[in-house]
Amino acid sequence: MKNLIALIALALMPAAALAEAPAPDAPKWSLAIHGGAGTLDPAQMTPERRAEYEAALQAALDAGAKVLAEGGSAMDAVKAAIIPMEDSPLFNAGKGAVLTWDGTNELDASIMDGRDRSAGAVAGVKTVKNPILLADKVRTDSEHVFLMGAGAEAFALDKGFAVTPPEYFATPARREALERMKAKQLSALDVDHKFGTVGAVALDQKGNLAAGTSTGGMTGKRWGRVGDAPVIGAGTYADNRACAVSATGWGEYFLRVGVAHEICAFKASVYAPCRKVNTCLANCRAWRCIRRLILLFCPTPAQSGTVR
Amino acid sequence: MKNLIALIALALMPAAALAEAPAPDAPKWSLAIHGGAGTLDPAQMTPERRAEYEAALQAALDAGAKVLAEGGSAMDAVKAAIIPMEDSPLFNAGKGAVLTWDGTNELDASIMDGRDRSAGAVAGVKTVKNPILLADKVRTDSEHVFLMGAGAEAFALDKGFAVTPPEYFATPARREALERMKAKQLSALDVDHKFGTVGAVALDQKGNLAAGTSTGGMTGKRWGRVGDAPVIGAGTYADNRACAVSATGWGEYFLRVGVAHEICAFKASVYAPCRKVNTCLANCRAWRCIRRLILLFCPTPAQSGTVR
Repeated sequence: MKNLIALIALALMPAAALAEAPAPDAPKWSLAIHGGAGTLDPAQMTPERRAEYEAALQAALDAGAKVLAEGGSAMDAVKAAIIPMEDSPLFNAGKGAVLTWDGTNELDASIMDGRDRSAGAVAGVKTVKNPILLADKVRTDSEHVFLMGAGAEAFALDKGFAVTPPEYFATPARREALERMKAKQLSALDVDHKFGTVGAVALDQKGNLAAGTSTGGMTGKRWGRVGDAPVIGAGTYADNRACAVSATGWGEYFLRVGVAHEICAFKASVYAPCRKVNTCLANCRAWRCIRRLILLFCPTPAQSGTVR
Repeated sequence: MKNLIALIALALMPAAALAEAPAPDAPKWSLAIHGGAGTLDPAQMTPERRAEYEAALQAALDAGAKVLAEGGSAMDAVKAAIIPMEDSPLFNAGKGAVLTWDGTNELDASIMDGRDRSAGAVAGVKTVKNPILLADKVRTDSEHVFLMGAGAEAFALDKGFAVTPPEYFATPARREALERMKAKQLSALDVDHKFGTVGAVALDQKGNLAAGTSTGGMTGKRWGRVGDAPVIGAGTYADNRACAVSATGWGEYFLRVGVAHEICAFKASVYAPCRKVNTCLANCRAWRCIRRLILLFCPTPAQSGTVR
């Protein structure tokens, strides 16, 4: 398995975990998840709080791992892993998403299938419980890749998604963060730094890759701000010939660099069969400016495609 | 100049033009524009109509060329070239943009500076006369890269943009196209094929690259559909170390492939100093499925940076 996949988890990984089939003769699959970028403040992180996070991450990991262990697809595993994190108030996605400047929740998500690079994304949705499922529905049931705002919600309604009351998403902790931000004129990083976007990347037993990302964005975001999470190529990318990437960090930098696609493009054999991802990262200016967490699976070019 | 820049205009170029400083000792700059992808139907294209398009393209080209000839920046040239096309009812951007399913105009634009990869983008704006200027304002006057919908319009208002009445944008030809699409259950390609997105790429005398794209999207688009034009990495990308790209075509394919970034990533010396863009394109599946037009400037790695 180690020969098959290079898992690179860059920089700090306060809320990430990895499940991998242990025995050499066990089915070959792999899954990595993240619960956001940033530094956990030890003063704020009690043993009980830490246990809560670890349990929530483990539940997400277990849900995705179960799909893969039973021979399910990477796409299904990514969704299975992300849904519990969207449903948990601990993470900045779905329930527990950070609040906009106006005190609302605007949710972004995207998902990509490495088999055919089909992708779906939504930005600024307010009434969909699991945005990752809506992103996937855009992928499978529309001619489009990327839907936004009220239009994306109309699409959800059209496709049978329940309308979730906006008040479902907000939590007291997120309200307090917004109020603190406004009162003390803090930046989003000051109040968001303990929490984050969620994401997952998976390699299934058939050798297919998938990636997904879901987020509430940044506390106090305004003007319909779209970050990297719903942008295919910035926060999410998957290509069986290269990588699956889910990113979290300061989205604007990821958008400018096209981080997820840049890593995949670098890995793809057509571009640079002999170079290392590290060379790419060493040349990536934004890399040195941001707190970030990237999970990626990179089968070598010769090994991508079928995996036995 | 020919050694300095490889201009590659792929596939059909019904509405593209190129201006270049002619004399060997003249200042080194270059500009290319496009007025959309697709096939022009000779039966529909009278000599008068053709002359109208050519004059509109020439006016755009002249506006951008003037900036560059006078030593202005690539960014200013891109804006100067795109504004007349947004203002012309002939193109699918600004005035003359195609209509959504609901009969409204939702405008998308993005711009990127190759010097520092700073970028701005807007999607789904309805009351801004020149979306390319709003995209640039996002780049220069916000902490963000990408704003959407009503939020982007609130930002525009905040920054002093005039509110343009939505009826300014629609033209009888676009209303007829939407009605025909609905009546005959045609696809967007059936009614859009003679018109298109606008874009420009420029290299200024200091050797800096810039790219910009502006569009109304696809006739009859629904659900807040976002195409490639406002997505940095899909429809627009600029990096002094590699390329400047403005794309037009079926946006969903460009989003999945990350076309603009893919071309720049391929060109960047860090990835593949010895390969040709054609190799990349030959390996790009979407390339064979879509009608498209890409304009790109690709100084070789050794020559990027300063140009004398």
